Amino acid sequence: MFSAVDVIRAKRDGLRLSDEQIDWVVAAYTRGDVADEQMSALAMAVLLRGMTPEEVSRWTAAMVASGETLALGDVRRPTVDKHSTGGVGDKITLPLAPLVAACGAAVPQLSGRGLGHTGGTLDKMESIPGWRSTLSAQEIRDQLDAVGAVICAATEGLAPADRKLYALRDVTGTVESIPLIASSIMSKKIAEGVQSLVLDVKCGSGAFMEDLDRARELADALVSIGTANGLRTSALITDMSVPLGRAVGNALEVAESVEVLRGGGPPDVVELVVELSREMLHHAGVSDVDPAEALADGRAHDAWCRMVSAQGGDPEAELPRAEHVTTITASDSGTLTRLDAYEVGIAAWRLGAGRARKEDAVDHAAGVVCLAKPGEQVTAGQPLLELHTDRPHTLAQVEEALAGACEISGADVVSTPLILDKVTADRSSR
Amino acid sequence: MFSAVDVIRAKRDGLRLSDEQIDWVVAAYTRGDVADEQMSALAMAVLLRGMTPEEVSRWTAAMVASGETLALGDVRRPTVDKHSTGGVGDKITLPLAPLVAACGAAVPQLSGRGLGHTGGTLDKMESIPGWRSTLSAQEIRDQLDAVGAVICAATEGLAPADRKLYALRDVTGTVESIPLIASSIMSKKIAEGVQSLVLDVKCGSGAFMEDLDRARELADALVSIGTANGLRTSALITDMSVPLGRAVGNALEVAESVEVLRGGGPPDVVELVVELSREMLHHAGVSDVDPAEALADGRAHDAWCRMVSAQGGDPEAELPRAEHVTTITASDSGTLTRLDAYEVGIAAWRLGAGRARKEDAVDHAAGVVCLAKPGEQVTAGQPLLELHTDRPHTLAQVEEALAGACEISGADVVSTPLILDKVTADRSSR
Repeated sequence: MFSAVDVIRAKRDGLRLSDEQIDWVVAAYTRGDVADEQMSALAMAVLLRGMTPEEVSRWTAAMVASGETLALGDVRRPTVDKHSTGGVGDKITLPLAPLVAACGAAVPQLSGRGLGHTGGTLDKMESIPGWRSTLSAQEIRDQLDAVGAVICAATEGLAPADRKLYALRDVTGTVESIPLIASSIMSKKIAEGVQSLVLDVKCGSGAFMEDLDRARELADALVSIGTANGLRTSALITDMSVPLGRAVGNALEVAESVEVLRGGGPPDVVELVVELSREMLHHAGVSDVDPAEALADGRAHDAWCRMVSAQGGDPEAELPRAEHVTTITASDSGTLTRLDAYEVGIAAWRLGAGRARKEDAVDHAAGVVCLAKPGEQVTAGQPLLELHTDRPHTLAQVEEALAGACEISGADVVSTPLILDKVTADRSSR
Repeated sequence: MFSAVDVIRAKRDGLRLSDEQIDWVVAAYTRGDVADEQMSALAMAVLLRGMTPEEVSRWTAAMVASGETLALGDVRRPTVDKHSTGGVGDKITLPLAPLVAACGAAVPQLSGRGLGHTGGTLDKMESIPGWRSTLSAQEIRDQLDAVGAVICAATEGLAPADRKLYALRDVTGTVESIPLIASSIMSKKIAEGVQSLVLDVKCGSGAFMEDLDRARELADALVSIGTANGLRTSALITDMSVPLGRAVGNALEVAESVEVLRGGGPPDVVELVVELSREMLHHAGVSDVDPAEALADGRAHDAWCRMVSAQGGDPEAELPRAEHVTTITASDSGTLTRLDAYEVGIAAWRLGAGRARKEDAVDHAAGVVCLAKPGEQVTAGQPLLELHTDRPHTLAQVEEALAGACEISGADVVSTPLILDKVTADRSSR
């Protein structure tokens, strides 16, 4: 017999919760026997007292066990997924899933929508005319066999405990807990039923984790949970102080993704897509294919077209364009030394690319294109940022807000590497 | 504009809440704009991060402001109250209120019912045939003028924020926080509208605070809140490792109180009643009356009779008696060195004197009489404890449980003083 108060008090007093306590409290919360006000007190105690890696792994497993899992056992290819903690201009999933599929693995990308300054993969894909996000479990399996890649909405039945807890944490000041963040991410990915997983932990002004220490802590927790739950798991920690690529906004990012799939595109996006695909293929046991070649020779783009078509989308259709396009120009000549990811993300969001509340719609055409990136030489009056919107009344405010996002100076810019660290099951970040 | 999440996050991160944040969150919680799951997360953050004395005083004032206060300005005597944190056999309020009234002050004792192993003053008073606990504000004022003492239920409108928060803390593992305990106690007392207050902070196995450090911390917090809110306030820290007096149980404690009011009764009860009344009279500015005399010469007993009669009770009526009375005898000869307050309290509760849930009824006749107290010489076979009950099926279990409550040894017992410390506005306990 367990009582919610006993479990709360144990964690409050800094004790380790037993496996049985964790299993019980997560299951009882899911079915409503532990009340919201009890779970929020427990979440606050977890935030302030922490959990051991063993507690976090068990907590994650209990959230997985709260619902169904997507049975991928019959899929004829090795299954592997990627999850990013979210950043500005992070369209990596769009070229990555078909690329890895083209190399021989199966990639079920169960994705979400955006909230606040970072975009959501489903919002981006929905820029494509006809494309639909909702597939049944059987449709997902069939498409993985036929095409090798699926990007779609998570089915309702996966990790319902996480969905409930996530909404609760949002209103109770209990979001910023590494054990709770890590178990939330991993419960959804483990419920997907993949054999391996690569995490892209973003770090910098545009990311949830602003400093490297916290990003490493999260990466360690994620890899530890995955490994404890039987997944081959590793994590890259990557820079998110500057927007990724040049396009920020749904249709703009789809267009940039297609450039990459055709062998072009911004070098940082290409680098990250190739690095993540190598890591995923390594886990999947595919060692004889070079993903850079599959991008160059059109195989990845073919897989993209098949993937989009399979979900009703027209890969050749024209993407929506915004009615109003204005530019922000350089105030000075020199080196662009800073282009702040967070401020660009906020600008794109205000222009209509993002949503403030879950029930809001997004403008697929809205966003920002970064015409220059840090390290590049610029001349006074040269266009730096292009703003796309159907909400022209937002422009004045956005232009003002973006004034502080760029810095031009005579100094040489010290370039930050894109990939800051890597965490594997054998090697934590410290 | 305030948001619950901002307030929770501030306290979570160890910041001091502003007066405005405190006022807002308490008021918004009372009217339901801050949800239970938000307040429980905040309560956990307060428990783990603490509050400064200034925050606690303001929190208390905000809880007072959430409802009405009992206007005692027209009462023609100085008003003073006593509050005990609760112990086993703690019937002190019964003789104390009429004694202090007999000496010239007015004592509005708004009291509660018992839950768990400690009894409640209203339950005790309701042993008296005809006595009613519910008075209107006007009846309370009239009786204070006419008699000088009232023991009655707190009116519904006082500190509703406290009532709501108290119930929430009970189910969310957030009871054991000195700031929350102290503000809960003081909000009710300040809302009573008295000019001064003496606190009896119990310390020992039968009390909520088992060790002296925590009791001192609570006493300091209580006195600081009272003083900051304009009340003359002091606290005695008193021993609760042994039951107070000999009687534990509702009617049994009324009978013992009447003994004290008639100039007799157990020495520890008399000592504490006299000490507390001196402290109360000092605050009330009454310096020319000796309470010990008022006990000896019958004035206190007269006030008791008037107070009971004013509320419909018959002070001469026979009190209920239990059908079954059995004794537990000494297993050995020697000095009684221990008689555990908590275990005796639990025994009385099981015999029917207490309640497990708020909606339960109590047996007024049930309880335990301690025939010997620590320090006394006992002989093998001599009765030590007398059990009174109308639930004979509980006897076997209670007898077994009480076996460990008594210790008899050849060693001399080191007697603990009853009054362990005193805290005033000028002198905290450290």
